[in-house]
Amino acid sequence: MKIPDRVVICEVGPRDGLQNEDRILTVDEKVMLVEKAAEAGFKVIEVGSFMHPGAVPQMATTDEVFKKIKRIEGVEYRALIGNARGVERAMACGCSKVKLNVSACREHNLANLNMTPGESVARFKESTLLARANGLDISGSISMPFGSPWQRHIPIEDIKSIIEAYLDLGITEISLSDASGMSMPSQVYDVCTRLMEDYPGVKWILHFHNTRGMGIANILAAVEAGITWFDASFGGLGGCPFVPGAAGNVVSEDVIHMFEEMGTETGIDLDRAIEVARLVRNLVGHELPGFVLKAGKNSDLLKQ
Amino acid sequence: MKIPDRVVICEVGPRDGLQNEDRILTVDEKVMLVEKAAEAGFKVIEVGSFMHPGAVPQMATTDEVFKKIKRIEGVEYRALIGNARGVERAMACGCSKVKLNVSACREHNLANLNMTPGESVARFKESTLLARANGLDISGSISMPFGSPWQRHIPIEDIKSIIEAYLDLGITEISLSDASGMSMPSQVYDVCTRLMEDYPGVKWILHFHNTRGMGIANILAAVEAGITWFDASFGGLGGCPFVPGAAGNVVSEDVIHMFEEMGTETGIDLDRAIEVARLVRNLVGHELPGFVLKAGKNSDLLKQ
Repeated sequence: MKIPDRVVICEVGPRDGLQNEDRILTVDEKVMLVEKAAEAGFKVIEVGSFMHPGAVPQMATTDEVFKKIKRIEGVEYRALIGNARGVERAMACGCSKVKLNVSACREHNLANLNMTPGESVARFKESTLLARANGLDISGSISMPFGSPWQRHIPIEDIKSIIEAYLDLGITEISLSDASGMSMPSQVYDVCTRLMEDYPGVKWILHFHNTRGMGIANILAAVEAGITWFDASFGGLGGCPFVPGAAGNVVSEDVIHMFEEMGTETGIDLDRAIEVARLVRNLVGHELPGFVLKAGKNSDLLKQ
Repeated sequence: MKIPDRVVICEVGPRDGLQNEDRILTVDEKVMLVEKAAEAGFKVIEVGSFMHPGAVPQMATTDEVFKKIKRIEGVEYRALIGNARGVERAMACGCSKVKLNVSACREHNLANLNMTPGESVARFKESTLLARANGLDISGSISMPFGSPWQRHIPIEDIKSIIEAYLDLGITEISLSDASGMSMPSQVYDVCTRLMEDYPGVKWILHFHNTRGMGIANILAAVEAGITWFDASFGGLGGCPFVPGAAGNVVSEDVIHMFEEMGTETGIDLDRAIEVARLVRNLVGHELPGFVLKAGKNSDLLKQ
């Protein structure tokens, strides 16, 4: 069983978690969460998104949050964008890393936009050029590569077309985002193994939701394939865009707890990560799905 | 990644789940759950235990439940026992498979009983002889082999002493039960690999709790080591004996969903298993931790 020496856990709760909440946090609350995540040791934090505020009102203040956060050297503060307008907003508020996203599902994209996902990515050229001309880093995400409500299995050739479209734009950091929570470990292992072989120059980030309880098992399957970068959300905040009330992203502190217990360094202080999850729970005002948050760490159980 | 053609999921909710509930189910309710689990296709069901009713009042009616259940040919209906009195009760109510249990933790056993776990197992001789003389099958369980509140890591030699004590009694079906929920996939893989090599004649059953969210990942790690029998509980009913309010056993229908999605046969009808979990939720009167119970199956999400 392959257990890596080190993994990187990216905290996506401020974006993928909070955008699912009824209560919209204030700018100061968001700033506090981002700062505390950075202090806990997260080296990558997805602070928010620059989508249209009408579409995602929870993220309407992302610009202000970026302006206010006190940054820690070496931490990457990134944001999700939809188009070149997002790059402009990022530039204006000091966000230096943006992420684009496209659905892996050809049928979905054809029905909605009358073009293939690869053609959608090609349209990201304007955003990419603008970002690069202004010194911003840019990465690409592919959502639902392991299945979507329109297609249980996405053909590997469809995923490869999207990757190649990203590579054509010079984008070499690519997230695979199981937003529908349909992925299964054997599939994750097979897809990751294949893609890592075919595109050795890509930096992969895997993003799992815990919709059907498979988040941590899928991370392990990806680890077996050689992946070491993972998104996760404090307390497991978030949801499935297709299933009201479903569990959210895989839980940051549970993932950290597992890796640290297995001897894999995360660079994150677990106690401080748990503190952040508690804070989130108070701010959103409801229980969160995190397991360690409820049961404590293994070491808490040990009698003195 | 090793994915087996077939696994066996043992339903332990009627015992390990219900014994954690405040509301004590009636005999008829328990009978209904056991019968519906068998109808769903579970081939092994832990119906209850024959411990002292003062110690575990939820299980006081196990004898009556055994007398009332309509059995399906080929299904194993088993019960947990503590000593020879349990064998007598099993015989009297028509239970033909009993399971003994001992803590893997030497310090725990020494402190409580002033003997090693291996010595405790040797004391099971009376139960074993009585069971065998009366045609009952008997199996042995080892709780907390992956860590206990008294010892984070149980030396492999300590686990082997217990296994050898069971083998000395002629007991060759052995459960490893992570009641404290402390196990981690790398550890599960290592311990299982080692034990399977050293004791090729043993039939292993792995029993995981989801206390810290690791249940399904641990099952996968055990699968990688070659294990194919697993305990699970409907809806994830149960708890951690050391952590009030913690999550229970790994969730039967989530485990079935995973295996069936990966092409591994379980012999269980997932829809009927989900029906049983819904019934359990109604009977205990509170939400259960099962993920598929909340989010539905992957196939439910597919647009027609």
